[in-house]
Amino acid sequence: MISKAQVKQIRGLVTSKGRTEQQAFLVEGDKLCREWLTGAAEIVHLFAEKAWLEKYQSIVAQHPGLPVTVASQDELQKVATQQHPNQVILIARLPAKSTHPPTANWCLALDRIQDPGNMGTLIRIADWFGIRDIVCSPGCVDVYNPKVLAAAMGGHLRVNIHHTELGLYFIKCTVPVLAATMTGTAIHQLKPKDAAVLLIGNESQGIHPSLLEKSTETITIPRRGGAESLNAAVAAGIILSRLVPA
Amino acid sequence: MISKAQVKQIRGLVTSKGRTEQQAFLVEGDKLCREWLTGAAEIVHLFAEKAWLEKYQSIVAQHPGLPVTVASQDELQKVATQQHPNQVILIARLPAKSTHPPTANWCLALDRIQDPGNMGTLIRIADWFGIRDIVCSPGCVDVYNPKVLAAAMGGHLRVNIHHTELGLYFIKCTVPVLAATMTGTAIHQLKPKDAAVLLIGNESQGIHPSLLEKSTETITIPRRGGAESLNAAVAAGIILSRLVPA
Repeated sequence: MISKAQVKQIRGLVTSKGRTEQQAFLVEGDKLCREWLTGAAEIVHLFAEKAWLEKYQSIVAQHPGLPVTVASQDELQKVATQQHPNQVILIARLPAKSTHPPTANWCLALDRIQDPGNMGTLIRIADWFGIRDIVCSPGCVDVYNPKVLAAAMGGHLRVNIHHTELGLYFIKCTVPVLAATMTGTAIHQLKPKDAAVLLIGNESQGIHPSLLEKSTETITIPRRGGAESLNAAVAAGIILSRLVPA
Repeated sequence: MISKAQVKQIRGLVTSKGRTEQQAFLVEGDKLCREWLTGAAEIVHLFAEKAWLEKYQSIVAQHPGLPVTVASQDELQKVATQQHPNQVILIARLPAKSTHPPTANWCLALDRIQDPGNMGTLIRIADWFGIRDIVCSPGCVDVYNPKVLAAAMGGHLRVNIHHTELGLYFIKCTVPVLAATMTGTAIHQLKPKDAAVLLIGNESQGIHPSLLEKSTETITIPRRGGAESLNAAVAAGIILSRLVPA
């Protein structure tokens, strides 16, 4: 049974403030929890239905000493942020914040990405294309927001997420910084690159002018129809599909 | 002021059942409402703040006889489904359902797309690439769901959305049906096509086997990293960027 104190603890993890205070975050749902339990993350507490614990006892056994609470689906649903019926949630330790992204590898730089679904999808895309580092500017949505975790589908376990001021980072980069904008070189004219930084801007305001100045080249996805813009994550996927070597 | 009866009417439009009963749907927010007011849609009722109506009186004047209700931001927020502060909402007439998509043009075919954000983003992507027709299978989320409308950013006004059983549709198609799957021809090996149908499957189950059988070719986006899959809309964007001629 989930105690009142535990309910309070779990609910606290829904906000960025609560996650910082507890130095922990919440992972929800069967698939995601199994990803985290088999990844290299530090798990603090597991809450699951009895049937789930029996089915996956070999995975749970990989974490000797892990506090486990048997809970009903009803109890789990009450503390969950996701709408689907829920058999399992877990609390994981927030990793130390990296402020030193690599400067010579493929990297995704995000300027004030606000929407948690977009942020999670961007992490999932980096994970798909084998990009191991994402750099978030100040003002990006917290990457341990439950909606980000849901959309990233375990990408957090394979992609390192750094936080720093992008202008200072670009100065240190030894690879080209490619800014995704509405004008610039058409991506069809570019060849795959061994390494580069792809800069993606805020959903409504785009890339901050001060960062645009510091980028090497502006690039664009040619438009053929009437839409004003593409979704930030979709644009990143299209560009990476062209520029990351197969 | 928004009357109690109007509040009930507006709230009814949040569900698919309510939209069918009223043969109408809800458009929310400044940018989207202006898109719809300047598009070819039939507007039933406009609810807006006084300041908004003054600023955009020339747009409103394009709809002589349109019932307009002056409302406070507080009233608008109470009936809105979107979280942002809201200055304007409108009710538009549901267009007649087309069940006869074109069979020789570029077209996006969607098999049971469930997530409203994905559906809206797919409409926005079609709109960006100048694809004028989307065909939805039975079991797709209602394209007039408020979240679909928000994510499509006006794409509904430029993309025709059809509803039919995809297997029967594919039989009539005179262009190749390309099924996006986890295996198949790598998209890098394909040349742009003057016309084709791109088939995108359900977020968790993929394309139904009976539809896969009826498709001309399976195609795939090569993976280089650890992610299990790409988001359905992102995958569609990447493939269309390769296959729709520039």
